[in-house]
Amino acid sequence: MSGEFDLIRRFFARPAPEGFLGPGDDCALMPAEAGTELAVSADLLVEGRHFFSDVDPVSLGHKSLAVNLSDLAAMGARPLGCFLSLSLPRADERWLQGFSRGFHALAERHACPLLGGDTVRSNRDTTIGVTVIGQLPAGSALRRDAALAGDDVWISGELGAADVALRLLQVRSAGDEALLAAARGALEWPQPQLALGQALRGLAHAAIDVSDGLLQDLGHILAASGCGAELRYDAMPVADCLLGLDAQLLRQAVLCGGDVYQLCFTASPQARPDIVRAAQQAGAKVSRIGRTVAQPGLTVLDADGGPIVLTGNAGFDHFA
Amino acid sequence: MSGEFDLIRRFFARPAPEGFLGPGDDCALMPAEAGTELAVSADLLVEGRHFFSDVDPVSLGHKSLAVNLSDLAAMGARPLGCFLSLSLPRADERWLQGFSRGFHALAERHACPLLGGDTVRSNRDTTIGVTVIGQLPAGSALRRDAALAGDDVWISGELGAADVALRLLQVRSAGDEALLAAARGALEWPQPQLALGQALRGLAHAAIDVSDGLLQDLGHILAASGCGAELRYDAMPVADCLLGLDAQLLRQAVLCGGDVYQLCFTASPQARPDIVRAAQQAGAKVSRIGRTVAQPGLTVLDADGGPIVLTGNAGFDHFA
Repeated sequence: MSGEFDLIRRFFARPAPEGFLGPGDDCALMPAEAGTELAVSADLLVEGRHFFSDVDPVSLGHKSLAVNLSDLAAMGARPLGCFLSLSLPRADERWLQGFSRGFHALAERHACPLLGGDTVRSNRDTTIGVTVIGQLPAGSALRRDAALAGDDVWISGELGAADVALRLLQVRSAGDEALLAAARGALEWPQPQLALGQALRGLAHAAIDVSDGLLQDLGHILAASGCGAELRYDAMPVADCLLGLDAQLLRQAVLCGGDVYQLCFTASPQARPDIVRAAQQAGAKVSRIGRTVAQPGLTVLDADGGPIVLTGNAGFDHFA
Repeated sequence: MSGEFDLIRRFFARPAPEGFLGPGDDCALMPAEAGTELAVSADLLVEGRHFFSDVDPVSLGHKSLAVNLSDLAAMGARPLGCFLSLSLPRADERWLQGFSRGFHALAERHACPLLGGDTVRSNRDTTIGVTVIGQLPAGSALRRDAALAGDDVWISGELGAADVALRLLQVRSAGDEALLAAARGALEWPQPQLALGQALRGLAHAAIDVSDGLLQDLGHILAASGCGAELRYDAMPVADCLLGLDAQLLRQAVLCGGDVYQLCFTASPQARPDIVRAAQQAGAKVSRIGRTVAQPGLTVLDADGGPIVLTGNAGFDHFA
């Protein structure tokens, strides 16, 4: 195991925080506090499916952790630590250096130390597995099944840019360089909304992070909570760089585009001033985009109050 | 995500224990108790590297969890829950059914519920990522760096059979069917020594689970603890089915064979009666195979007291 250990040590080892035991033993150790719950999320990213082979390894390291931290944010949890499992066809020093730099920079920003994991040689695929563990007061989690009919529906940040960047990178036609340059930050450097998620505990009812598209992910809240929703398209926070796009393409990107990693949440209309203040304190932009209704179903209304009909796939299925 | 969710739900979903939140939200939730530490281990298994493509999926499901539970055992931790991430080239119903059956049977035996994870489509490799979370009283973990010079060195279970089975499966020559049939259980159905690990808290000094070979893994204890050891080859617990093997092959398998998933631990000679009783209560066999010494280095003595010289690779390096 010396080669494997050398790799991990050289690029990933950092001193563990006081009271923690990091890599080097059979398990990592973390203290557990009374009256709390642990929140845990595990995701896999596969080259060619979840990221391009030639993506900047620094941004890939960032994003691999960001998508998991976003799940903690959507529960309102504070990160405790993370675990990284890499399956690589070869030990590419430049790639490891960049990846570990991006991963650690985000881990440090959110006080989420890398405490262990595994590194193995793959046959062909580069596969990145991250597990994050967070903590929150017992019973305070922002669950998907807690929306009530009559809630406001909110979204943090802006919509559409990550999806547009993904499509441009898939096509790579000339002439789109300026739009790609403006949009790709949203795709490659998603910022998990941890401060907002924690600030929403006790204020929001249900929450989810938007990874597969606003309509699909809000649909999970509605299905789990047994209600419906009516959204207003003109209330959607569209990224400025997209305002010149064809209207149909833009709608698709805003409503169905994935890789957003912003929080969609519901809350009582009485909580509006508190939510606006909580978001300001967290440094997050939030927009009220509609409301939940007792009747199941999800409708998006245009500026005239008529329903918008969408074409194509309303979200992304990794097994479709 | 509907296809992905269907797969996970059909084969892996089980009701979460009281006070837990299982799959279906952004994170799983687990209660955390005061005065405890969390022990966490994450491992990746890749087809063709860590398991044969045609291995029985039931035993593969068992082993994928067993190797991680073995890490909890080696810290003395009690399992809280586990997370499974599968990257698969296709959704093979028969394989998923078998794999999930083996995984869940072991999870239930050790009260380690599957609480979440991820399922994604790979390009070619089947990659299995498991993260286990355990709990133990704060400060009681059996760490690698706690051996003292003058300790006894112990091993649980028996040695050699998994390595012999692996070599026979790699060669698949005719005439070895009886030996393979007797030895392959050790390779394919390792039994994590969780009860023994927990019983050794407060009794053993240092512990490790033997995944890469006795000498290599004991070497990790010695390096972390700053001491050496002298082992007696004739004290090694050799699996009965191997007694007809060539002596040189047998030594290699016993001392350097991997995939053992038994506990190697050190303890004061005063603790001998307590350790024997703890092992009996846990239903585990333990053997005293040598002692630690102040002088760094690891020696194995034969029945005449002369040092044994090993040929070949003293363990397995996944990146070698």
